Amino acid sequence: MDFSSKLLENAVYEMSQLPGIGKRTALRLVLHLLKQPERQTENLSNALTKLRTMVQFCKKCHNISDTVLCEICSNPKRDASLVCVVEDIRDVMAIENTGQYRGLYHVLGGKISPIEGMGPQDLTIYSLINKVKEGEVQELILALSSTMEGDTTNFYIFKQLEGTGVKTSTIARGIAVGDELEYADEVTLGRSILNRIPFEGSFSNK
Amino acid sequence: MDFSSKLLENAVYEMSQLPGIGKRTALRLVLHLLKQPERQTENLSNALTKLRTMVQFCKKCHNISDTVLCEICSNPKRDASLVCVVEDIRDVMAIENTGQYRGLYHVLGGKISPIEGMGPQDLTIYSLINKVKEGEVQELILALSSTMEGDTTNFYIFKQLEGTGVKTSTIARGIAVGDELEYADEVTLGRSILNRIPFEGSFSNK
Ligand SMILES: [Zn+2]
Ligand SMILES: [Zn+2]
Repeated sequence: MDFSSKLLENAVYEMSQLPGIGKRTALRLVLHLLKQPERQTENLSNALTKLRTMVQFCKKCHNISDTVLCEICSNPKRDASLVCVVEDIRDVMAIENTGQYRGLYHVLGGKISPIEGMGPQDLTIYSLINKVKEGEVQELILALSSTMEGDTTNFYIFKQLEGTGVKTSTIARGIAVGDELEYADEVTLGRSILNRIPFEGSFSNK
Repeated sequence: MDFSSKLLENAVYEMSQLPGIGKRTALRLVLHLLKQPERQTENLSNALTKLRTMVQFCKKCHNISDTVLCEICSNPKRDASLVCVVEDIRDVMAIENTGQYRGLYHVLGGKISPIEGMGPQDLTIYSLINKVKEGEVQELILALSSTMEGDTTNFYIFKQLEGTGVKTSTIARGIAVGDELEYADEVTLGRSILNRIPFEGSFSNK
């Protein structure tokens, strides 16, 4: 593409660095901003910069938070003995949305994936293990996507926790195998948490 | 969506103000930025802000430019007696890309569209009429999309210029009726400019 303005070229380039945004789409988005009041671009830039520079991750569950401890971890009405392990903050949002879960979370930040070069040390797995070993947690619900990487991660965590006596379950597979958690409907997702099954038992279901 | 962070919620909201970007996509884009070095968000924010606050539109052709007169208008090798009228700066980019056009441009900023509330006064049509009446332009090529709005706009301009003696042509309809100019392949687009036909003649082709 041949731009008549370096400023435009630069804005399109930076926009097209976002995943799934090609040059043509980036140009369309940038030209849209030019037609809107200056305030809109200002708001977008400020919101992104503020988030990126001021973002915090909850010390306890690694969820995105504006405070040292997130709202969920600091809520005395939540059951701190129950921890639901998820890949991503989007999964926290999806489960909170069901309104059926009263425990805490632990956000791993991804799954173990040799192909993508993600090992246990790239995730918050050791922080989870420590939390369990400190004794506050009585039950872990493993709520990772039911993909190969999800299963590998589940199994790795399960092995690391052997001997700790923590009860480990996975969410009931009402969710189709291979489906991403965040796209499940609320009823299915809520039910699959209520009907969670002991982790050992889940092997025979496959 | 229930966000654990106001900063996150705000960033997702602003991102989802862009056309074609829903809340879910906005969340995905914003979480992607969080996983990248801070520098990437900084570069994006700066590029957008700089463009929006410092952007100029060429005084002569209304193309986006970093200077008062754009590179095309200030290039002495371009034929200033020939002006190609387009809707949008994307069309300038598409035509420049063919490498076959040596005249100047006039960017209207849209089409006349009663449905979208766009009248001649919302476009740069009067600046075009003045330019022609000042006498420098010998030939106008109307290169709007061949949609109903494009045809209406062509006709409006043609009517306004009656009596000025300027030669008016439309680009040859090698481009399928209803297609957007910017998606045409380079060969077709280049050829349709070379084979342009007088505007009066184009009526009988329909
Ligand atoms: Zn927390
Ligand atoms: Zn110009």
